[in-house]
Amino acid sequence: MSTRLPLGFRFAGVHCGIKRKPQNPDIALIVSDRPATAAGVYTQNRIYAAPVQVDRERTPNELTQAVVVNSGNANACTGERGLRDARQMCAIVAEACGLKQNSVLVMSTGIIGEHLPMKKINSGIRAAAAQLAADEASVVAAARGIMTTDKVHKLASRELAMAKAEIGLLGMAKGSGMIGPKMATMLGVIVTDAALDPATAQSMLCEIVDQTFNCISVEGHTSTNDTVLLLANGAAIAEPLSGQELNAFRTALLELSTELARSIPADGEGATHLITVTVRGCEDPSDARHIARAIANSPLVKTAVAGADPNWGRIVSAAGYAGVEFDPGRVALEINGCLLFDQGEPVKYDAEQVSNSIRGNVDTSVVLTVGTGQASIRFWTSDLTAEYVRINADYHT
Amino acid sequence: MSTRLPLGFRFAGVHCGIKRKPQNPDIALIVSDRPATAAGVYTQNRIYAAPVQVDRERTPNELTQAVVVNSGNANACTGERGLRDARQMCAIVAEACGLKQNSVLVMSTGIIGEHLPMKKINSGIRAAAAQLAADEASVVAAARGIMTTDKVHKLASRELAMAKAEIGLLGMAKGSGMIGPKMATMLGVIVTDAALDPATAQSMLCEIVDQTFNCISVEGHTSTNDTVLLLANGAAIAEPLSGQELNAFRTALLELSTELARSIPADGEGATHLITVTVRGCEDPSDARHIARAIANSPLVKTAVAGADPNWGRIVSAAGYAGVEFDPGRVALEINGCLLFDQGEPVKYDAEQVSNSIRGNVDTSVVLTVGTGQASIRFWTSDLTAEYVRINADYHT
Repeated sequence: MSTRLPLGFRFAGVHCGIKRKPQNPDIALIVSDRPATAAGVYTQNRIYAAPVQVDRERTPNELTQAVVVNSGNANACTGERGLRDARQMCAIVAEACGLKQNSVLVMSTGIIGEHLPMKKINSGIRAAAAQLAADEASVVAAARGIMTTDKVHKLASRELAMAKAEIGLLGMAKGSGMIGPKMATMLGVIVTDAALDPATAQSMLCEIVDQTFNCISVEGHTSTNDTVLLLANGAAIAEPLSGQELNAFRTALLELSTELARSIPADGEGATHLITVTVRGCEDPSDARHIARAIANSPLVKTAVAGADPNWGRIVSAAGYAGVEFDPGRVALEINGCLLFDQGEPVKYDAEQVSNSIRGNVDTSVVLTVGTGQASIRFWTSDLTAEYVRINADYHT
Repeated sequence: MSTRLPLGFRFAGVHCGIKRKPQNPDIALIVSDRPATAAGVYTQNRIYAAPVQVDRERTPNELTQAVVVNSGNANACTGERGLRDARQMCAIVAEACGLKQNSVLVMSTGIIGEHLPMKKINSGIRAAAAQLAADEASVVAAARGIMTTDKVHKLASRELAMAKAEIGLLGMAKGSGMIGPKMATMLGVIVTDAALDPATAQSMLCEIVDQTFNCISVEGHTSTNDTVLLLANGAAIAEPLSGQELNAFRTALLELSTELARSIPADGEGATHLITVTVRGCEDPSDARHIARAIANSPLVKTAVAGADPNWGRIVSAAGYAGVEFDPGRVALEINGCLLFDQGEPVKYDAEQVSNSIRGNVDTSVVLTVGTGQASIRFWTSDLTAEYVRINADYHT
């Protein structure tokens, strides 16, 4: 992360007692000193959490000034009271920071089906409001305040020189379980001191999420709370970006989102490898996506990588059940740059060497070519280890 | 298993050296003393093994007299030579048993991508042909000869009194990894001494597989070799079944197939629970299937059951991403008969008691009601344990 923060934003992360350990922040607050354009992309799960409903109603808009997040409790499947609590979180922020209530967005992550401890959250938000600052320590505290089973906080930033001024982008995200495709995966907030009109911000965010946060999985279970927000406050340049400058911004936003998205499966529950699945030679982008997702979500593929096993049979057969038509006789597969399968048949390769390259590196590259079409995709996932099972089977004990 | 075997069939299982341990048979042979009607249902994976191709070409028919199976090597992704080897297995059976080559069907299961050790298989088939017998020990040897990582062999039988005579049905199947939906899961052979015309046998098998073998999963990875065969040789009643007797046969075939299908996830790799997912109240049977499959294949649901955690949030949210429209406010969920969620909200229940009932029983019942429609489905799956990961990550070492 670079040290240049987007202008006009302040950050805070505090512990209010939702999480057990006092050193782990569970409230994050981001405040813009002026109304910002806000765009949001949300879970496609039919069962969605209260904060998703609130933010859906409020985005896109041009008047957002704050985002409040709590971790440790997802406020999902909590009925009418959950919705009241989500709105109440916004109201507390508005009161503490002197803002309008509908200028606040809200996110929650953690366990499902329990009501929020509103007393703790109330004092947590007020403490966070008192600590808001525009320095790196506060940004890190906020990024830690949205974590659940994540081992590391996830931040990425970019700077861009525009004609009138320099602008900054800063993003934070969290994983690391219940990460599935078909969504805007889990929580992400990206802020910039550029200005964007709401329609541009929303369409750009949708497009970029589709290539980044929607191209990752841990176990493929789409959460009820997935949310990515983009806030553009115009503190560096008040005029909404357009033309070449908008294109440069889009490229920076894509890079930053890719970096954040990758960081989620890289820190997936129990993960020892980040697997990049590239599928190419498809007739249609959605074909490539279906095949990549089938490979990325196959427990047999994920355990093979965990075991440093260059098991091309599991990868090729996962492609075969993705529901996409292709000619098996044209399929080729490379793992970590080594060709294992070509023209639909296994080729001679040094299994020991490929296995060592998987074992010795955190990054594993799987490149499947299925034909001669122009469409391709990159999809990121984690491997499946006994530690993943331990985290998810024994977390209550 | 009952002791009454279908008439006119002989069985054998022998070890020929594909598997390492001499006490584990790796060749199974079933021979009918007269031509039988044969129907088959095969994997829907676009990458399919050589024996699937051979059997697809040969079924349905009225002239089948033998099925040969090898375990330890799937003869998948082995190109032209694989196809030659599969045909050669049929030819060896035909020669050893004095049959026509196209009256033999073939199945293989085991590792993908290696050529069959045809010398071993040749002597194995000849040894099996010499040992063919119509007794229970031979049936068990054959059922063991199709096993891979299965811990137990899987047999089921039924007897039916018809007007002219009694008929018998006998089925065998194997799991227990690479078990996914959308297919006729892994290997199954059902034989009966009733007679069936080929079109009836084929349509009945398709219909019943859809409710049984296509309603199970272990990790959801559809194999390249999935095959279920039905052989009806008419040794008990030569006239093809029809009318009420055909209906009674269909019911018995459904029961037998259900028993075999359930036995596969019950013996799933590393499994400690057999989870029966019932989804009801759907408008359409395919809606029920999609929801049940999403729940059954969610690693978060499967690890929760392994950890005896009545985690309704993971189950309800898995239903939510199945791609089916439903009203979240009507959803209800029971685990092991205890209501956890009703009218779209969690209800008060004794978590300790539900957890104990999961921990204390191998069978776990999950019943999700999503509305007031008439369509429902039962789907069986295994839980996900660290042992599953160990089996699939470390099997080479």
